Amino acid sequence: MILIDGRATAKQIKLEIIEEIKQITNKGGAPPHLAVVLVGNNSSSETYVTNKIKICKEVGVQCTLIHYENSVTESKLLATVNDLNKDENIDGFIIQLPLPKHISEQKIIESISYKKDVDGFHPINVGRMVIGLPCFVPATPKGIFELLKRYKIETIGKHCVILGRSNIVGKPIANLLAQKTYPGNCTLTICHNKTINIKKHCLKADIIVSAIGVPEFLKGDMVKYGAVVIDVGITRVYSMKNKSGFQLKGDVLFEEVAQKCSYISPVPGGVGPMTIISLIQNTLLARKKVIY
Amino acid sequence: MILIDGRATAKQIKLEIIEEIKQITNKGGAPPHLAVVLVGNNSSSETYVTNKIKICKEVGVQCTLIHYENSVTESKLLATVNDLNKDENIDGFIIQLPLPKHISEQKIIESISYKKDVDGFHPINVGRMVIGLPCFVPATPKGIFELLKRYKIETIGKHCVILGRSNIVGKPIANLLAQKTYPGNCTLTICHNKTINIKKHCLKADIIVSAIGVPEFLKGDMVKYGAVVIDVGITRVYSMKNKSGFQLKGDVLFEEVAQKCSYISPVPGGVGPMTIISLIQNTLLARKKVIY
Repeated sequence: MILIDGRATAKQIKLEIIEEIKQITNKGGAPPHLAVVLVGNNSSSETYVTNKIKICKEVGVQCTLIHYENSVTESKLLATVNDLNKDENIDGFIIQLPLPKHISEQKIIESISYKKDVDGFHPINVGRMVIGLPCFVPATPKGIFELLKRYKIETIGKHCVILGRSNIVGKPIANLLAQKTYPGNCTLTICHNKTINIKKHCLKADIIVSAIGVPEFLKGDMVKYGAVVIDVGITRVYSMKNKSGFQLKGDVLFEEVAQKCSYISPVPGGVGPMTIISLIQNTLLARKKVIY
Repeated sequence: MILIDGRATAKQIKLEIIEEIKQITNKGGAPPHLAVVLVGNNSSSETYVTNKIKICKEVGVQCTLIHYENSVTESKLLATVNDLNKDENIDGFIIQLPLPKHISEQKIIESISYKKDVDGFHPINVGRMVIGLPCFVPATPKGIFELLKRYKIETIGKHCVILGRSNIVGKPIANLLAQKTYPGNCTLTICHNKTINIKKHCLKADIIVSAIGVPEFLKGDMVKYGAVVIDVGITRVYSMKNKSGFQLKGDVLFEEVAQKCSYISPVPGGVGPMTIISLIQNTLLARKKVIY
């Protein structure tokens, strides 16, 4: 069994990004510039944003944080998006989700210029991804793709089972893995909460990508020998073991499943560390204007 | 076995459209107005366009044909699209594909206003469809959905196997049937030319949608008893039986497969007749501005 080490891979990509940015700035170019819009004081959101800013600094991406109170109006936020769309110094930006209930997330997402939409949530980027055109791919699927690539995991003709159909993980990874590319060319099955007998489907899979957020859902008896298992679930579970009082759990019961796998990504340390670095990669792509 | 009668269903929808348009015009409103842009003299394209115009007339949709020589330039075509985008008298329009090789189809498609894109090929409509937002759904998947609905075929929790991953049939129908809607909520498998052992996958399916364009590919021994089979393939095959010298063949070996099915759509007379009427439904939606 080979452990897919997301931390080491993210670290390697970080070095590559640093090198690329140096090449830009050595020629007198400005470094990539990401703006992050945060609304309110959701503690998870604050942690994510802090980490994003931290990694930006480490790799040499300029990062501007715009932080609003929870009470900010939708029109104020739309005006900010509009300003960022026009600002030539900003290569890409994200609105950290979730937003307070009085603001329509969809309306905000659709107001972002697709050319600066480094989260890849705008319908144009989603549509282009499905059609197979150059686009910003959302961070989590992009990170999974990097792991598959860098571990040289064969995908052509493999039967891949995706657990979950969210707009940010399940649907994009399903669409990407069915494309005529590498990674891709998989026979693709999407399972979800309406699927009858998920175990039956999982047992047939050469590759399982689990993104349902149910801790330790995937047990050893649900996986065939030699399968590749990518665990996208990250759930906080109360735990007396840690000082923090909680522990991060994936969708996969690692001790059981790992024994049967050819490759497995752990939680933590698998897909998680890849997501922020994927966002930074998208920001670099935006800076280099290679997509749009 | 119940035969899914696309001709009868399309006829019924036609009556419904006529009724709706009457309600609009009785109130003094203009009827829906579709423009069709045809380039060159591809005989299949000319037949499709002729049929579209004919059905428009029958239901009371105003239809304007813009026909260019094969030699028309890309910039001329882009200018036409731009005019149609702005023309307040046009509710929706389509560019009949394929286009001559000197014109980029993707560029033309992306220049169409998504609000008038009644073919549903623009990335915004594709993206919104995948996310689950109101949008123009392409004619063939839309027609299949109408058939499933009007024949009250259960889809929730069913395992649906799609053969083919084209942008106009396979991918959209896969994305739609995996959504949290009716028809939808299927466990969804996409098979294609890189799939190993398609038969194995088909034998597990409660519903098969075949859109690969290989005549009589799906044989009786590839389908389980009680399956629903939707045949999207339409291939012209040379035949001495018909005066025209050819015959239309679906992807399904009907004589064998029909015996095992709970429901089956034939070729011709299944999905085919639904596609034009679906385009007209989209034009009516555009006229009523219910999507955008």
